[in-house]
Amino acid sequence: MLAYATRLLNHGPVTVLTTADEHGANACAVAWVMPLSKGPARFVLSLGRGHLSWEKLMATGEAVINIPGAHQAAETLAVGTLKGREVPDKIHVAGFATEPAAVVAVPRLAGCVAWLECRLVERALAEAHGLVILEAVHAHSAHLRDDGTLDVAAHPTLHHLGGRRFAADGEVITPPLPEPD
Amino acid sequence: MLAYATRLLNHGPVTVLTTADEHGANACAVAWVMPLSKGPARFVLSLGRGHLSWEKLMATGEAVINIPGAHQAAETLAVGTLKGREVPDKIHVAGFATEPAAVVAVPRLAGCVAWLECRLVERALAEAHGLVILEAVHAHSAHLRDDGTLDVAAHPTLHHLGGRRFAADGEVITPPLPEPD
Repeated sequence: MLAYATRLLNHGPVTVLTTADEHGANACAVAWVMPLSKGPARFVLSLGRGHLSWEKLMATGEAVINIPGAHQAAETLAVGTLKGREVPDKIHVAGFATEPAAVVAVPRLAGCVAWLECRLVERALAEAHGLVILEAVHAHSAHLRDDGTLDVAAHPTLHHLGGRRFAADGEVITPPLPEPD
Repeated sequence: MLAYATRLLNHGPVTVLTTADEHGANACAVAWVMPLSKGPARFVLSLGRGHLSWEKLMATGEAVINIPGAHQAAETLAVGTLKGREVPDKIHVAGFATEPAAVVAVPRLAGCVAWLECRLVERALAEAHGLVILEAVHAHSAHLRDDGTLDVAAHPTLHHLGGRRFAADGEVITPPLPEPD
């Protein structure tokens, strides 16, 4: 599965990064992420240094890149809108459920199309450019074709156009904003 | 337009990078590209150091990130398959036509959904990691909504799943390979 790990986000879907430390788990939406190499399967993503997810990632060196499906548009927008420092238990408030990952000590989001369990492999570039390089240690999807590409016709992913707009399955959708408490 | 430049590829479409030096123009398909900052509008892409496009980009410091539409799937696959060092005039052999860009001295590909005319702003990262950082000096699309997002419902882009497979407009397509001479 790791041999084809880059194919899980080669087509540019929005992702949700989960992280966790002794204070709990957090999630943030990350559209600015891409593969960097196939062997080893590495990814680069742009992450704000002030974010709670940055803090947890730097503390533990582990994260899961969750690739949500089109059916999770509202939850994904909510994760991209709510702030982890202001909303304790942001993951569940956004409507996601968590489940254990296979290898890393960070939970993954239930119901996603694919998951990349990763370890941080390069800190200097993160400090200098905000570019985080992650290496996949485990990858999983239940929706692969024989050639390792995602079956997005049956299980469409979300592509963030900007603001509240996403493309999915040939349509442009605008999920509702999360409700205030 | 530059204020919304990152929105032209925020949703993860495959791109075609055009470059040109005194020996002529070249094009290569680049799926591993993402926005890096909104102000200034910068992008980071992964480009092989042995490629002819790398040579031309480093020589002139200019490139155009062309965002092809779903109607250009065969041309895009051809550009990603043919090698510029082996096929003189690769751009036209692949089926693309060129036209002048607005600001840079590199041609853009006719009929694309959007174009980002760019200058290279960071060489050290390119040498160390193969990560090229480009800054947009001009951006254009005739298919924008009021909020600067691309109207992909009317003008779908291509999303490279791997191998010959692309997602476009909610379908998975497999364009034909370029014909041998």
